[in-house]
Amino acid sequence: MEEKNILGYESVRLDDENNQLIILDQTRLPYETKFLYLKTLKEIWTAIYLLQVRGAPAIGIAAAMGIYLEAKGMDVKDYDEFYKKFKEAKEYLASARPTAVNLFWALDRMERVVKDNRDKPVQQIKKLLHDEAVAIKEEDIWVCKTIGEYGLSLLEPGMGILTHCNAGQIATAKYGTALAPIYLGQEKGYKFKVFVDETRPLLQGARLTAYELLAAGVDVTLICDNMASLVMRNGWVQAVFVGCDRVAANGDVANKIGTSVVAILAKRYGIPFYVCAPTSTIDMKCPTGDDIHIEERKAEEVTEMWYKQRMAPEGVKVYNPAFDITDNDLVTAIITEYGIARAPYSESLKEIFNKKAAAQRKDK
Amino acid sequence: MEEKNILGYESVRLDDENNQLIILDQTRLPYETKFLYLKTLKEIWTAIYLLQVRGAPAIGIAAAMGIYLEAKGMDVKDYDEFYKKFKEAKEYLASARPTAVNLFWALDRMERVVKDNRDKPVQQIKKLLHDEAVAIKEEDIWVCKTIGEYGLSLLEPGMGILTHCNAGQIATAKYGTALAPIYLGQEKGYKFKVFVDETRPLLQGARLTAYELLAAGVDVTLICDNMASLVMRNGWVQAVFVGCDRVAANGDVANKIGTSVVAILAKRYGIPFYVCAPTSTIDMKCPTGDDIHIEERKAEEVTEMWYKQRMAPEGVKVYNPAFDITDNDLVTAIITEYGIARAPYSESLKEIFNKKAAAQRKDK
Repeated sequence: MEEKNILGYESVRLDDENNQLIILDQTRLPYETKFLYLKTLKEIWTAIYLLQVRGAPAIGIAAAMGIYLEAKGMDVKDYDEFYKKFKEAKEYLASARPTAVNLFWALDRMERVVKDNRDKPVQQIKKLLHDEAVAIKEEDIWVCKTIGEYGLSLLEPGMGILTHCNAGQIATAKYGTALAPIYLGQEKGYKFKVFVDETRPLLQGARLTAYELLAAGVDVTLICDNMASLVMRNGWVQAVFVGCDRVAANGDVANKIGTSVVAILAKRYGIPFYVCAPTSTIDMKCPTGDDIHIEERKAEEVTEMWYKQRMAPEGVKVYNPAFDITDNDLVTAIITEYGIARAPYSESLKEIFNKKAAAQRKDK
Repeated sequence: MEEKNILGYESVRLDDENNQLIILDQTRLPYETKFLYLKTLKEIWTAIYLLQVRGAPAIGIAAAMGIYLEAKGMDVKDYDEFYKKFKEAKEYLASARPTAVNLFWALDRMERVVKDNRDKPVQQIKKLLHDEAVAIKEEDIWVCKTIGEYGLSLLEPGMGILTHCNAGQIATAKYGTALAPIYLGQEKGYKFKVFVDETRPLLQGARLTAYELLAAGVDVTLICDNMASLVMRNGWVQAVFVGCDRVAANGDVANKIGTSVVAILAKRYGIPFYVCAPTSTIDMKCPTGDDIHIEERKAEEVTEMWYKQRMAPEGVKVYNPAFDITDNDLVTAIITEYGIARAPYSESLKEIFNKKAAAQRKDK
């Protein structure tokens, strides 16, 4: 499968020959297309922590490839030593960000490869880890495309669509999640009018979403997060599409800070609110949104990071949560690669996983 | 009456001796306390347009003092020429910003002085214009203090309060509107915990509100606009206080962009949403919010104004409305200097003006 996105590059790429992970530095866009060449686990941890690689699917892919590279370089005497070192590396990478479940999901998949093949030589396990990491990336391309098709089935040509943060090509292997229906619609001449929340504090909407949609020739209008209400009141939005970092078993959604604002506004104005969620982001072991740990980040992201000068008085307290919880009653539907789930989510999400299990049995 | 605020200065001051208006440049705070010395009508127009003086009450005061200075300098042969020139100057100043009604209200008050005294010598009319401009400022101090007392009657010690934009001392002659209850509570040891929306794109919350509350020793926490939902969901907010630029006769409120977001969130979470409105901002000739013209400002405020580098791709469209409309069903109460109005506003606001008229008759 062609892995380059329409921007002509890959956000996360394994360069196995040179034992490195090549990632697009998402903190430098749109004014610089800079790639980072990561060789150590610490460098990969830091890239995830600093959001140089971000977006739940892209984080999962980077973590899988990163732990493969780390495992590949391990000089060990036996399986037990290998597994112990692997486990340490896994726990370290998992500590980079607490909210997006894909990070843990991808690392768990990699650990399963190690454990399921404990009777094989370490060298062979390393090869299997390589294949698993590559498979996670390739699956992501199919997952996003399928979500895009399901999403597009909910839309009509000419509609106004609002999105928050970046759940696009940059955040995944290709297509994106929330932006996938827009890209597929664009190919069909649907002429959507897309409104992009800038998404404070790190401006992923302004820097990344506006950038990639504009590159694809989509009609895009940038707004500040607090303008979404007026845009909806003006009658310019017929659907909201967002990605997610984790969906709880009851359908509560953790996603970029401000997502619940958009959901509450959409409900007020009678606009459907769709969450695009690969099954890898649905955490059936997490009962509700209240059980999801919300990452808090440093105050300087709010007070100075992007500014010419510090824009808030010295000494002011800052609350800077990276995510929020959108309660399930605000979610019109959750769009997965195995179909569209609607309330009650405690039942419909189980059904999605039943379909997934059936499809996987059929594949084998 | 002492006109300096707790920061030790006046936001708008008439220096009659030197024929100039001295204003605090609100675009330079918090990192620079710079005053502007405005001598021409064009300079005053520009200061209002650029938000160097902002906040509905402060704009009204600046406009009144500005047109007085302009009138004072007019060399005319008779009343008719004076009135013609005055009218031209008034229309010019009124064009600086379209949404805040105080601008028109203050200029109308000044024009009434001219028309009501057409039988007097021009020199004497100029003196009366001076007195009217000074009266507008002095009244504002009383109005804000009274609004603060009514607002405080709705609060309990220790409450969490959220505010948007800046409706504080900087935006008025003294006390502010939405912040007045907080200042009066602070004096009584109420220990409020105040959450301040940074208020994109121009960051009046981060730069001005956080600054003046911090200077007053208030417990203040800065958040990005899109964090208000999570803060409310966390149970940290018991009341929202905002100012306003114009209230329609049906209680719809035009205020800084994002105000309706806060109102919709407050409704969702069952938190009272209070609008602090001097009667000078209530426009009984404006039937509903849909009849209020929403000022749109330049794209660069969103894409680059405060940044080290342009933060959005070149060529992206931007929608940058300066205000939005909060529908009256979202407003728990409108707090004026003549009491607290509640729904149905089409009746209660009339009652407020009846009280005002009665008080003014009593004064005479």
